[in-house]
Amino acid sequence: MQATIITIGDELLYGQTVDTNSAYMGRELALLGIRVREILSISDDKAAILEALARAENASDLVLITGGLGPTKDDITKVTLAEYFNTPLVSNPEILAKLEEFFTRRNRPMLQSNADQALMPEACMPLRNDRGTAWGMWFEKNGKVFVSMPGVPFEMEALMQQEVLPKAKQFFKLPAIIHKHILTAGVGESFLAERIAAFEDNLPEGIKLAYLPSVGGVKLRLTAAGAEREVVQQLLDAQLAKLQPLIEEAIYGYDDDTLEEVIGKKLIEMGKTYSTAESCTGGYIAHQITLAPGSSKYYNGSIVSYTNEAKNEILGVKQETIREHGAVSEQTVREMVAGVCKGMHTDYGIATSGIAGPTGGTAEKPVGTVWIAYGSPNDIRTKKYEFKASRKINIQLTGLMALELFRKYLEEKG
Amino acid sequence: MQATIITIGDELLYGQTVDTNSAYMGRELALLGIRVREILSISDDKAAILEALARAENASDLVLITGGLGPTKDDITKVTLAEYFNTPLVSNPEILAKLEEFFTRRNRPMLQSNADQALMPEACMPLRNDRGTAWGMWFEKNGKVFVSMPGVPFEMEALMQQEVLPKAKQFFKLPAIIHKHILTAGVGESFLAERIAAFEDNLPEGIKLAYLPSVGGVKLRLTAAGAEREVVQQLLDAQLAKLQPLIEEAIYGYDDDTLEEVIGKKLIEMGKTYSTAESCTGGYIAHQITLAPGSSKYYNGSIVSYTNEAKNEILGVKQETIREHGAVSEQTVREMVAGVCKGMHTDYGIATSGIAGPTGGTAEKPVGTVWIAYGSPNDIRTKKYEFKASRKINIQLTGLMALELFRKYLEEKG
Repeated sequence: MQATIITIGDELLYGQTVDTNSAYMGRELALLGIRVREILSISDDKAAILEALARAENASDLVLITGGLGPTKDDITKVTLAEYFNTPLVSNPEILAKLEEFFTRRNRPMLQSNADQALMPEACMPLRNDRGTAWGMWFEKNGKVFVSMPGVPFEMEALMQQEVLPKAKQFFKLPAIIHKHILTAGVGESFLAERIAAFEDNLPEGIKLAYLPSVGGVKLRLTAAGAEREVVQQLLDAQLAKLQPLIEEAIYGYDDDTLEEVIGKKLIEMGKTYSTAESCTGGYIAHQITLAPGSSKYYNGSIVSYTNEAKNEILGVKQETIREHGAVSEQTVREMVAGVCKGMHTDYGIATSGIAGPTGGTAEKPVGTVWIAYGSPNDIRTKKYEFKASRKINIQLTGLMALELFRKYLEEKG
Repeated sequence: MQATIITIGDELLYGQTVDTNSAYMGRELALLGIRVREILSISDDKAAILEALARAENASDLVLITGGLGPTKDDITKVTLAEYFNTPLVSNPEILAKLEEFFTRRNRPMLQSNADQALMPEACMPLRNDRGTAWGMWFEKNGKVFVSMPGVPFEMEALMQQEVLPKAKQFFKLPAIIHKHILTAGVGESFLAERIAAFEDNLPEGIKLAYLPSVGGVKLRLTAAGAEREVVQQLLDAQLAKLQPLIEEAIYGYDDDTLEEVIGKKLIEMGKTYSTAESCTGGYIAHQITLAPGSSKYYNGSIVSYTNEAKNEILGVKQETIREHGAVSEQTVREMVAGVCKGMHTDYGIATSGIAGPTGGTAEKPVGTVWIAYGSPNDIRTKKYEFKASRKINIQLTGLMALELFRKYLEEKG
């Protein structure tokens, strides 16, 4: 089973858009056991698209195509697919009705270019797009499958999950593959590798381990494959049980867990709440926490105090604390936690203060210096970091480490 | 002048690494006026590499290749290039000396696999790599150029700047090409297309228009090309001057501008400050604003009030306002703006309150209902939206629209 990915759009060739769609599709296909043979990024150009389709058809069983489905003139993927499969474009009443509803609800006029999005190649099965106006297309030809999706990642991802992957599973006869992701934060890849080297060397046939590093964390993935789903599951469970105790303190969750949601579940269990007081993270932690639906059950909010005045007046950090120790200091973040717990009426708080960069550092407190405090007003813990990355990554690392420290604190408490 | 980019590595096909190298090379080539015809991502596999090289040679004048130059067994790009160009590998004394120095300085033993990195195809010109142990290679064949570089972005970028781009400028006779990005927010792609349809139809030879849509915004790109740089610039400027008045109210900036930085510059110019009071956006707006270095000059912070208590106690929203109109209401966001300006001592404020989803909606206020207020305490404006996307995208759209409304407000004021 081999696949080709074709991403269409001049913006990819000019480098104005980084092609993240291919990596997303590659990951999802790998999870099904489908190997991507080649990724082709090409221009919004008829000859280029036709040539890429022929090349992909020749080499692969499955061809995933993104881009070029918008309502504007440079979007020519649909008409080119119709030409390639020698099939006429016909108006699809279901799509047209959805489009009319879409524009009526938004009180916007439906232009001819919008109505044209209801035209579909007759030979394809339309794939419903709940997040946009360009539907996907599923073509079958001599036992091979071609899928065309919009290039907007948010729309493509929903189409993949809701339509393409389930249909591909059904269409192709695939072996049973089960993955388990073990999520860790705050420890390096080489440290993990050292701890589990013997485990890795002794992995039995049919199971593989992969390291997927990201900012501040490493995801481990166990993948087991075989003919029988139950046997595969047993193999995976047995190895997971061996792996867990080796790195227990670094594991914050599994599969789709996020650190914020793990903390949220724990707080609901404990009947407690928290809030944040953010200086250098500037709202990043609050944003991460509130991305989780239902976070208002355990999270009351954040004071983003970008001035010393706000730290003093809203959070109650004493003026002499800032004067004597500075805004980036252990004493300041301690008082920020106490202040935000009081002001937001929460059991726990997290506070950050640091120099995210690129300027503002001193010899004593270089760019990347960050103080984190966390806990309840009567048991506040602190930790200092010196990150070495860009402003954006320093902010992300601070947020991740603050949440991970707080997660471990809650583990201890409850 | 056409180029092909070939990126080599199984991690790209599995989606474990997003191919950012191609976008970097594409951008740099575009600045030289070299059009990338195709990007090919392939496996560390001899047959795949040979086939990709033949395909690229057939279609392009310049072929840039990254990846597969490391010291491990799966790195086979160099031997495959030697085979393709039918040339032997010979040890390069300069590279070998550099390698020995590298390992001596780090007190690490030099393994045979490391020493092998000094082997170079005889037919190539080696390209010095100051940031790593794998040098680049420059091959010429029938007036075409093939360049191989390591896949580590930090090394590839230095090689491009120091070696590849200067050599390519010399080798090829290149036209002048100039791009201009026009950034818009809050209006749809099809609406823009309709407004500028006549402009687009009448674009003269040598200039092209592209639409690059993203969440809540559309980037327009004008690209002009020709023999003389000055003539190209004039052509571009003339068309830009025609385009601007057609969509003036939607344009927030050009090229690398961000909405947050445009607002920041305007506030610095006016000598004013702002702050935010966020309910449904949960810190997202604060995070976007504070990603900009130096934002503390004009931004004082945010109150992320996820509870009615915090809205009342910290922001001063009256209890009866929330009781009578609800937290998601025009009256509440108005009082939030007044409260945050007072509490944070700023001239202006932005407030959001809404139902981000996926649950929490009612018949009267469905998921996606958002109220935004902005302005100074004595001139607060409001607007209501009903977004239809996921929780995450509803949050992003709210943030974008709030900032765009505030930008227009500032335009009017100053």
